Amino acid sequence: MQIIELSDYNIYVGEPWAELISFLREKDYSSHFVLVDENTRTHCLPLLLDNVPGLDFQIIEIASGEIHKHIGTCQTIWGELMAGKADRQSLLLNLGGGVIGDMGGFCAATFKRGMDFVQMPTTLLSQVDASIGGKLGVDFQQVKNSVGVFRNPQAVFVYPDFIKTLSFEETRSGFAEIIKHGLIADHAEWQKIQKISDLNQVNWTEFIIPSLHVKERIVKEDPFEKGLRKALNFGHTIGHAIEGHALETDRPLLHGEAIAAGMIAESFLSHKHAGLAEKTLEQITEFLVNTYDLYPFGKDLFPIFLNLMEQDKKNEKGLINFSLIPAAGEVLVNQTCSREEIVEALDYLNAQV
Amino acid sequence: MQIIELSDYNIYVGEPWAELISFLREKDYSSHFVLVDENTRTHCLPLLLDNVPGLDFQIIEIASGEIHKHIGTCQTIWGELMAGKADRQSLLLNLGGGVIGDMGGFCAATFKRGMDFVQMPTTLLSQVDASIGGKLGVDFQQVKNSVGVFRNPQAVFVYPDFIKTLSFEETRSGFAEIIKHGLIADHAEWQKIQKISDLNQVNWTEFIIPSLHVKERIVKEDPFEKGLRKALNFGHTIGHAIEGHALETDRPLLHGEAIAAGMIAESFLSHKHAGLAEKTLEQITEFLVNTYDLYPFGKDLFPIFLNLMEQDKKNEKGLINFSLIPAAGEVLVNQTCSREEIVEALDYLNAQV
Repeated sequence: MQIIELSDYNIYVGEPWAELISFLREKDYSSHFVLVDENTRTHCLPLLLDNVPGLDFQIIEIASGEIHKHIGTCQTIWGELMAGKADRQSLLLNLGGGVIGDMGGFCAATFKRGMDFVQMPTTLLSQVDASIGGKLGVDFQQVKNSVGVFRNPQAVFVYPDFIKTLSFEETRSGFAEIIKHGLIADHAEWQKIQKISDLNQVNWTEFIIPSLHVKERIVKEDPFEKGLRKALNFGHTIGHAIEGHALETDRPLLHGEAIAAGMIAESFLSHKHAGLAEKTLEQITEFLVNTYDLYPFGKDLFPIFLNLMEQDKKNEKGLINFSLIPAAGEVLVNQTCSREEIVEALDYLNAQV
Repeated sequence: MQIIELSDYNIYVGEPWAELISFLREKDYSSHFVLVDENTRTHCLPLLLDNVPGLDFQIIEIASGEIHKHIGTCQTIWGELMAGKADRQSLLLNLGGGVIGDMGGFCAATFKRGMDFVQMPTTLLSQVDASIGGKLGVDFQQVKNSVGVFRNPQAVFVYPDFIKTLSFEETRSGFAEIIKHGLIADHAEWQKIQKISDLNQVNWTEFIIPSLHVKERIVKEDPFEKGLRKALNFGHTIGHAIEGHALETDRPLLHGEAIAAGMIAESFLSHKHAGLAEKTLEQITEFLVNTYDLYPFGKDLFPIFLNLMEQDKKNEKGLINFSLIPAAGEVLVNQTCSREEIVEALDYLNAQV
């Protein structure tokens, strides 16, 4: 068990049961709720119930998938908390991937103006990305996470063994955030990452811990995303637009797949705009193209992507905001690019995949 | 203009225009939205637009009334903010009573995880009650304010002249919170209040300022309602249940009317449970009965009321929580009463009205 101590909560990385039991004993909650989807109910919940006996966990199950991450599902969750007589001394344990963590956290943060919640992320993506930063919320009108709040959990339990319950594609999707953390802030890690040739052979704990440290450093300096934290947005301005649109089609992309595409396009922008060396652009593109199964997007989609980018939360005064990398391991926030440059970057992406 | 300086924002009491203009100039928001209902659009918005010229206010109108204070209306508001391309550097100005302030504040606090908002309360109730404390939210499944967050506005502008746009009943409803503030924390104020015989003749500014000071003192010591702040709940445990039920009938009660009934019943509990002198109980009852047009509730409603009380956010571990007054101007929080005592208090209320 490794413990990352943040200013107001701890992240426990490793087999979680002993620490979780002692946490729950100390907190003495009036009641305990667990939010799951059909996958984590089958694959993860039994482990929790077997290893944390003697507590009456009330189970709330929602359907899995980003498509259910909306305010209607929140109403279901709030309704179940109400029906189970949850009060402000109750706990909600979110057992699942990013959707469960973001939406369950948002429901807890707003139920009766705030009950405690604990995150137990079960996907590689949520383990490295959603464990730190307190960003909670749901999608609204196709715009990702456009309704939400900032609020930290009481604790996060990262159990790398849960990754084994995931498909190869899910794990590869989470890997994109590890790549991103290396590219924006940890050159040595990016070098280590490029040596990975078979994702099935990776000891993920080795990559999760440095990746959490990158995110911790950035979030600590800017908890409410006023400045530096936007660094984490690398690949996400274009990636979110691609993901938001793909959700509505019969070819949905996993988050990390969309972010991988976004990182290719934004590395191109970094080359044009922020001085990223052509050779580094080529290395990044090559690694991402080899790792992910990407496909080109019709030019008729570009206006839709641009429209979605205009809705990005990080924009100011109508300009589309990017975080770009002048080199692998360095980042510049608040870079604005013109529509023409963005179209050029999408053309570059199309030509590579 | 009087200014009450709180730790992170100011309340301006008086004609607001000059201060509002200088506030907006300093903040330099990227865009400005105003939330109104059909009443404040007619009676209050023209004053704002005439007196704060040169700004492009985008108007969002919702239907007036507590019955519309739900997550569905939030979706309308978020949708209009999205359509108007609001970003995190935009401002939402909530121009209306408690529903507008609570719901508009909640929508702003959650839109893209938080945009700035300013409260311009137009009812006596919202001026004395909602100006301080950062409690935002909407009703859910008949339970008042059961989905929400704590968050402070950037500023509050209390313009007592807006009260003239209200009906007598609305003003009398707001008066209930002034009475409550006197009863829990300001004996001298309670004495002054009892001398009021004609609500049409009152100079409200004289009562708003001391009432705001009571609330300020209490909230400052307990911003997240962990302890002392529950003092403000006097009259509200039973009052909210009465109000929540009445909303569903053809005889809805205004908030202050329900709280007046709640204060009678909870003064009875204060007498039984907390040592409130019989004479003071009689004075409180007499003043409230003379001021408000209350009516008795069938005994068949009592189980419904009790069920709603069980959902109160301030409960812990399944016990119904009250704030009771051992004397006029004093308060005790975290008092629990049995179902039998609560029924007795409702019987007392029925016998008086």
